[in-house]
Amino acid sequence: MRISVFRKAHFNAAHRLHNPNWSEEKNKEVYGLCNNANYHGHNYNLEVKVTGEVDPETGYLIDLKVLSDIIKEKVEKKFDHKNLNLDVPEFKTTIASTENFCYLIWQILDEALGEDLDVQIRLFETPRNYVEYPAT
Amino acid sequence: MRISVFRKAHFNAAHRLHNPNWSEEKNKEVYGLCNNANYHGHNYNLEVKVTGEVDPETGYLIDLKVLSDIIKEKVEKKFDHKNLNLDVPEFKTTIASTENFCYLIWQILDEALGEDLDVQIRLFETPRNYVEYPAT
Amino acid sequence: MRISVFRKAHFNAAHRLHNPNWSEEKNKEVYGLCNNANYHGHNYNLEVKVTGEVDPETGYLIDLKVLSDIIKEKVEKKFDHKNLNLDVPEFKTTIASTENFCYLIWQILDEALGEDLDVQIRLFETPRNYVEYPAT
Amino acid sequence: MRISVFRKAHFNAAHRLHNPNWSEEKNKEVYGLCNNANYHGHNYNLEVKVTGEVDPETGYLIDLKVLSDIIKEKVEKKFDHKNLNLDVPEFKTTIASTENFCYLIWQILDEALGEDLDVQIRLFETPRNYVEYPAT
Amino acid sequence: MRISVFRKAHFNAAHRLHNPNWSEEKNKEVYGLCNNANYHGHNYNLEVKVTGEVDPETGYLIDLKVLSDIIKEKVEKKFDHKNLNLDVPEFKTTIASTENFCYLIWQILDEALGEDLDVQIRLFETPRNYVEYPAT
Amino acid sequence: MRISVFRKAHFNAAHRLHNPNWSEEKNKEVYGLCNNANYHGHNYNLEVKVTGEVDPETGYLIDLKVLSDIIKEKVEKKFDHKNLNLDVPEFKTTIASTENFCYLIWQILDEALGEDLDVQIRLFETPRNYVEYPAT
Repeated sequence: MRISVFRKAHFNAAHRLHNPNWSEEKNKEVYGLCNNANYHGHNYNLEVKVTGEVDPETGYLIDLKVLSDIIKEKVEKKFDHKNLNLDVPEFKTTIASTENFCYLIWQILDEALGEDLDVQIRLFETPRNYVEYPAT
Repeated sequence: MRISVFRKAHFNAAHRLHNPNWSEEKNKEVYGLCNNANYHGHNYNLEVKVTGEVDPETGYLIDLKVLSDIIKEKVEKKFDHKNLNLDVPEFKTTIASTENFCYLIWQILDEALGEDLDVQIRLFETPRNYVEYPAT
Repeated sequence: MRISVFRKAHFNAAHRLHNPNWSEEKNKEVYGLCNNANYHGHNYNLEVKVTGEVDPETGYLIDLKVLSDIIKEKVEKKFDHKNLNLDVPEFKTTIASTENFCYLIWQILDEALGEDLDVQIRLFETPRNYVEYPAT
Repeated sequence: MRISVFRKAHFNAAHRLHNPNWSEEKNKEVYGLCNNANYHGHNYNLEVKVTGEVDPETGYLIDLKVLSDIIKEKVEKKFDHKNLNLDVPEFKTTIASTENFCYLIWQILDEALGEDLDVQIRLFETPRNYVEYPAT
Repeated sequence: MRISVFRKAHFNAAHRLHNPNWSEEKNKEVYGLCNNANYHGHNYNLEVKVTGEVDPETGYLIDLKVLSDIIKEKVEKKFDHKNLNLDVPEFKTTIASTENFCYLIWQILDEALGEDLDVQIRLFETPRNYVEYPAT
Repeated sequence: MRISVFRKAHFNAAHRLHNPNWSEEKNKEVYGLCNNANYHGHNYNLEVKVTGEVDPETGYLIDLKVLSDIIKEKVEKKFDHKNLNLDVPEFKTTIASTENFCYLIWQILDEALGEDLDVQIRLFETPRNYVEYPAT
């Protein structure tokens, strides 16, 4: 019985969109307000979807307490109340866009959850703008 | 023109997670607070997705009044304001986990909606924990 | 500068509405499905409103971490994953209605927050049914 | 890196369900209240999902400002504060059902977004009734 | 023990803003898109707040089933799937603005609920625009 | 006829809580993660409540387009995609707490809306933490 369970989490962070290979003018033109030199920020919402087989003995695909603890330990601790550009090493060399941020969180959770479980995530930068990886 | 329509419903119920083949200690260890002997409860939210062909004459995939009545008759009447463990025969022999509950509701709706319509459901135990069957 | 801060919390519990001084018939007639002998349950949502003066040094009315810890310690621990009728002494002698439950939580928080802070709460039994105390 | 980005929009409109090839009686029987001769209306919510490859230089799949402007120009301007039956030529010959409306908006956005991007939309007639095209 | 209980309801309707004493130009200038001759529409959400004393025997301020039935009978039946301007006599002589609509619903419910209960309502035209009467 | 109308808006910003008169240790102790030197951020949601008399000719308390434009011009332009501590002069000498931020926005809107209209606002730092001024 292949099923998916979902768990939501949230955290907040500051960031800016800025490509160091571009002039200030080009950065402003491409990223607009999101390029503000002093950063801005978001309440990020995260939906983690885990797919696999239900264990008939426990009735669980995965203990949601375990899943929730993994998200807290690996994702919330790393990003909550942080500045993505300054406090997160991975964004020294990548644009801190929602697309790249979503992919980074997916990599972290995919590794943490092991081979038997498939992971897909949705990362909400605002309630109206969000990103899903991998694409289905 | 293959399309999906969705209908949301809600009901509330009491339940507990308990495996009768285990000791009390093991039940407490695996299920934690969810094992409380006197039960706890939830406002369950249900999203039913029905996929098929649109009827060009009515413009409908399915009359949502019909779908809504099926959900009321087959799902809400059976589970609303009930104790899943004590009032629902299917949970005498299965753990009343959200995974198993989701699969049970899917079986009921899949049978009720017939062969021409594909059914997928999401069952929310809380706004942050939910399950989808079948997995995509 | 008199201001109000709000903090939301949530927990879930089983309960039933039942007046031991009435016959089974009268209980069924008055409470309907909510009288189910085996209980049903809810995801309760709680909004706590605290009103008072802002401390100019901290910029806080109350540290929301402190408020959140009080709610966890005094409310969530007492009611989360419990059966209100069986596990909560106060409901041995009072109907476990949302009105009485709201008033009980208000008493607990009003005492915990002290004389300088005014407390008002909203308790949501479902997203569509909720209660506020004290009335304004 | 294939990813999906989502953007939400909203608008409101009047409509009625009515098949001109049927008698008044049959229209009432099939469509019920939705057949009201003087129309009724909805706050429509739209979720647009766009799938494709992330541009490593910008970190964007598509600039959400661009996507939002396309939705405003092509969808909101055409439908917002309109009567679907009277003000929208496409519904002179098609039933103004959510299914057909969803497909119409998909056609508009699929053409506007070009061949490199896949589009899927969800159209919410109410928070509890919605439609998705294409089906997955 | 003075307490407030709340009940939410929803319905949808078409309307337009139009003052028959004004020229077409003035109507367009004042009401903009909301003046569209062929109407537009909304999913209205209604929050009804009822304040009074809790009955110690039932634990209820008011049976929410009773309140919900009054709202259905007196409000939903009258406005749901209707055109406010054409199907509702009260709007023949009053502008169908959310302010006037809110006051009309309050009058209906205030009369239906009797002298011992105070009524206040919030009427949502959209999730972002809403009105409350009476003002507190 | 005294009534209240509400309008919601949203914007996002970076900030940190920091009292320059305190040592780094005391700042960390009082503000915890919110003191992060590199800032963090939020999607702020704003609910503006305006109370006054309805104009019988227009049926409006205030044209919501006008209210919405005032909020855009005076609030969103000033705070959206900004760093409250670095980009907003008022927070050079005040703690950028939600309490102080709420009071600042109230001052701006109270002045903009004039003497005939009463203003009260709710500022949401997250969906679970928010502040209201003035207190009622």
